[in-house]
Amino acid sequence: MGLVGRKPDDGERYRAILETAARLICERGYEGTSMQEIASACRLTKAGLYHHIQNKEQLLFAIMSYGMDLFEGQVLAKVRDIEDPVERLRSCMRRNIELVTHGASKEVIIILHEHATLTGEAREYIDQRKKQYVRFIENTFAEAVKLGRMRPLEPTIVAFSFLGMVLWVYKWFKPDGRLSSEKIIDGMLDLFFGGLVVPGAATGEKV
Amino acid sequence: MGLVGRKPDDGERYRAILETAARLICERGYEGTSMQEIASACRLTKAGLYHHIQNKEQLLFAIMSYGMDLFEGQVLAKVRDIEDPVERLRSCMRRNIELVTHGASKEVIIILHEHATLTGEAREYIDQRKKQYVRFIENTFAEAVKLGRMRPLEPTIVAFSFLGMVLWVYKWFKPDGRLSSEKIIDGMLDLFFGGLVVPGAATGEKV
Repeated sequence: MGLVGRKPDDGERYRAILETAARLICERGYEGTSMQEIASACRLTKAGLYHHIQNKEQLLFAIMSYGMDLFEGQVLAKVRDIEDPVERLRSCMRRNIELVTHGASKEVIIILHEHATLTGEAREYIDQRKKQYVRFIENTFAEAVKLGRMRPLEPTIVAFSFLGMVLWVYKWFKPDGRLSSEKIIDGMLDLFFGGLVVPGAATGEKV
Repeated sequence: MGLVGRKPDDGERYRAILETAARLICERGYEGTSMQEIASACRLTKAGLYHHIQNKEQLLFAIMSYGMDLFEGQVLAKVRDIEDPVERLRSCMRRNIELVTHGASKEVIIILHEHATLTGEAREYIDQRKKQYVRFIENTFAEAVKLGRMRPLEPTIVAFSFLGMVLWVYKWFKPDGRLSSEKIIDGMLDLFFGGLVVPGAATGEKV
């Protein structure tokens, strides 16, 4: 099974197929979307689609890999080298909310929504990439605790609370709504960190 | 369309069908589960299943209504009359996490996961019940702010952060894992309220 080893070619065509398929799957769910519908939306015959994509599960895997690439490029890679762990975590939350509230969100939604759909090697590969993100949050938090900048809470609970708050946004965010991406970012940073950072840490005062 | 008006009869049989269907839909998704499979799992013929359930969407609606009944009975009804708004919100978080980490979670997962699957009147009805919960959290929080017990954050962001943290638990909780339901409850209460409650509010000190 070359699922994991297969590298998408860089052609515009391939990316356009992934984008179109992601839009359909996002609207109708993976099981609710047929390869025929995806082919039609791409203005391809079904045989033409299969020229680019091995099968439907391969397509889902390709969309999720593409989503993880976007995520890692726009969030992880941008914050990984920030020296201060509190600033690293704040910047991470900001960029993650931006990703969910902006254009690239459909691939991310599919990663979140179809998390149980992939099987075998492909699923393990995506799960590993997701786990790296959880580890990154846990470790950054632990670093901040070590420096006395955050309260010593359970790192895994902190990481999944961070993720729950931030990723749930895709369920309720309305691009034309009262709460802009920027307002949500400010509000969540205030809420999440207002609790984590020890007030008056500089003077050694504890909550 | 009698979708919303239809009251499930109280027969054991009907409830058993909902439970079995919820388990299958939870495992395979709504689109990935056929009425034939549900009938077989219930040891019914397809005609026998249709004797109890009008159609597949009606079945999904019945499962979601049942999930909302469970939720309202085990969370909302139990905390609504707690006088102190901070205690009301804490108790609400505790009970909601308990619901997600215990047996009744499959109906709740379906409500969360298939939130875009229902259409028309049925969808509006379920959405209304969900919105009532968001309003309840917003209002309880606003009450606590009024009393000077919580910081004046944006109520909708507070409500959806609460929900994101708590409901996301269904994605990562493992019944036999290192983090018990009780540990998650304690950790999330500490994290969420440690940020919200104004430390030293009694003395008028602000963060």
